[in-house]
Amino acid sequence: MTLALPTTLSRARIAVEPALFDALGRLDPTSRRLAEYHLEAGGKAVRPALALLSARAVGAAEAIAVPGAVAVELVHNFSLVHDDLMDGDVERRHRPTVWAVHGAAAAVLCGDAMLALATQVLLDVGTLDAIEAARQLAAATQELIRGQHADLDFEQRRFVGVDECLAMAAGKTGALLACSAAIGAVLAGAPAAAVRALSTYGAELGLAFQLVDDLLGIWGDSATTGKPVGSDLRARKKSLPVAFALTGSGPASAALAQWLGTEGPDSDSDTARAAGLVEAAGGRAWAAEEATRRLALAESALASAALDPDAIDELVALGRFVVTRNS
Amino acid sequence: MTLALPTTLSRARIAVEPALFDALGRLDPTSRRLAEYHLEAGGKAVRPALALLSARAVGAAEAIAVPGAVAVELVHNFSLVHDDLMDGDVERRHRPTVWAVHGAAAAVLCGDAMLALATQVLLDVGTLDAIEAARQLAAATQELIRGQHADLDFEQRRFVGVDECLAMAAGKTGALLACSAAIGAVLAGAPAAAVRALSTYGAELGLAFQLVDDLLGIWGDSATTGKPVGSDLRARKKSLPVAFALTGSGPASAALAQWLGTEGPDSDSDTARAAGLVEAAGGRAWAAEEATRRLALAESALASAALDPDAIDELVALGRFVVTRNS
Repeated sequence: MTLALPTTLSRARIAVEPALFDALGRLDPTSRRLAEYHLEAGGKAVRPALALLSARAVGAAEAIAVPGAVAVELVHNFSLVHDDLMDGDVERRHRPTVWAVHGAAAAVLCGDAMLALATQVLLDVGTLDAIEAARQLAAATQELIRGQHADLDFEQRRFVGVDECLAMAAGKTGALLACSAAIGAVLAGAPAAAVRALSTYGAELGLAFQLVDDLLGIWGDSATTGKPVGSDLRARKKSLPVAFALTGSGPASAALAQWLGTEGPDSDSDTARAAGLVEAAGGRAWAAEEATRRLALAESALASAALDPDAIDELVALGRFVVTRNS
Repeated sequence: MTLALPTTLSRARIAVEPALFDALGRLDPTSRRLAEYHLEAGGKAVRPALALLSARAVGAAEAIAVPGAVAVELVHNFSLVHDDLMDGDVERRHRPTVWAVHGAAAAVLCGDAMLALATQVLLDVGTLDAIEAARQLAAATQELIRGQHADLDFEQRRFVGVDECLAMAAGKTGALLACSAAIGAVLAGAPAAAVRALSTYGAELGLAFQLVDDLLGIWGDSATTGKPVGSDLRARKKSLPVAFALTGSGPASAALAQWLGTEGPDSDSDTARAAGLVEAAGGRAWAAEEATRRLALAESALASAALDPDAIDELVALGRFVVTRNS
């Protein structure tokens, strides 16, 4: 199913982009140029949108969340710049990645600069709530790093369990979405119960998001994902559908395990056959159902606290868009 | 001249190391293991020592500076782990570097984790002074990144001016030493004039330190520096003595410029000849004199504010040690 980009996202981009590019003005000229190059490709602004909505959800003005939205977007993009380098990915959003254009060293430094800048943006707010936001963002950054370490470790292994794969995704994707979905409320000084509900929403949404991302990494259309068809399979990535498929005892699971032990290079029919094995072993259906289940958990978390109903509606619509997107 | 390691440094290491390794316990297991491997090689603890002394210099207990000492040491070591990777250095302190043992990706993540941890250590203090310390540390980190970008840029160029080389060193080395030499005073809520004097001390000491480091990179004994003899020359590094030597109009400057345009690999006699050209063109003498001059500027900055005389004596002794060290 394809949905139009919600106005929530375009509104968030309009509200946050000036402050984001303004913040980049504080970087050294090289980091700034590279960060601008990276950010100009445009993301969907899911994290900034969550940040703004989380302020409204606790009855505050969205404006109070803008530094939080800028900070989470900076941490997200710091991780993309470093991840592209670590994964050897040469293309993102239909453009060459930062390291592919400017070299590995400059990409390392550009990411470092964006990470440090995220802290600066929050500390410049100068309130105790902003300090708490900075602490939560730093903790989310550590979880993100933990997840990326696990992801790299999985590449070296033949077998990865579903639970450890979910724990990896909770770090790599869930932690920053959880922080994004609560940071506006934190900046507004909201009660702990509201912050917790919003954070849980983001964490579960993050898992749903990762499950869909993994499905797209195998079955996504390269014209919309911007990545080559079957690229995750070619990289022998133990993504969530693959991890689930490997737990089966049927012939498809065995054949998939055998294929993952091969080294490639793969023809298009090789990756198509591998995708077929993941599907035959139930990995595709499980991942789709698990994404739906996680989304339901996310939505029920929102019902657990006293939050603004209009903001909740927008959060729910945004979450559903994220989980049914096709790119 | 060789001096014994001042007791200031051993005292600082004893005071700060437990808190430093305690902080590492908050990292994901992989980042923690790599950071411990990197830190166990042991540094001189110059930055932690400066941090502790800066608290005493404003009449506060050294204990108040410990989180600052931990944070500056984390930022310093984040930059070493990333720099070793960017520079392709396989050895530091007589041991293989983190990336050489654990791979580039894990080294990127380990550095990222140490950078984020530095912020966490300061924010956990929870005072407004600690927020200010975190802001100054983040700003110093941006300067450090600016300096490293410039350093990488210099490698691509045949000629680098002395002024831009000094500006690079002010970023790469001076900014974090300036922050280290003031962070204890900041954490103690000292008046701006005292913070400024201590910060200037660190900045000028940083330039002196870099000048000496550059001299050791050409003429240092590999047994004490832990780096191969002449490694900076082999890498065609436009270090400060080289940049000065290139400004001359004599035959040694011209021959040096010509040699820098060659690609190597160099025999030991090639690098010895290049070192001779830097010396003949005045680069060695200039760098040694400039280091002395910067140290004097550093010391006179300390006299510009009302600071504790005993702490000043220790700061001065520490600075002199740093600039006359042989490793």
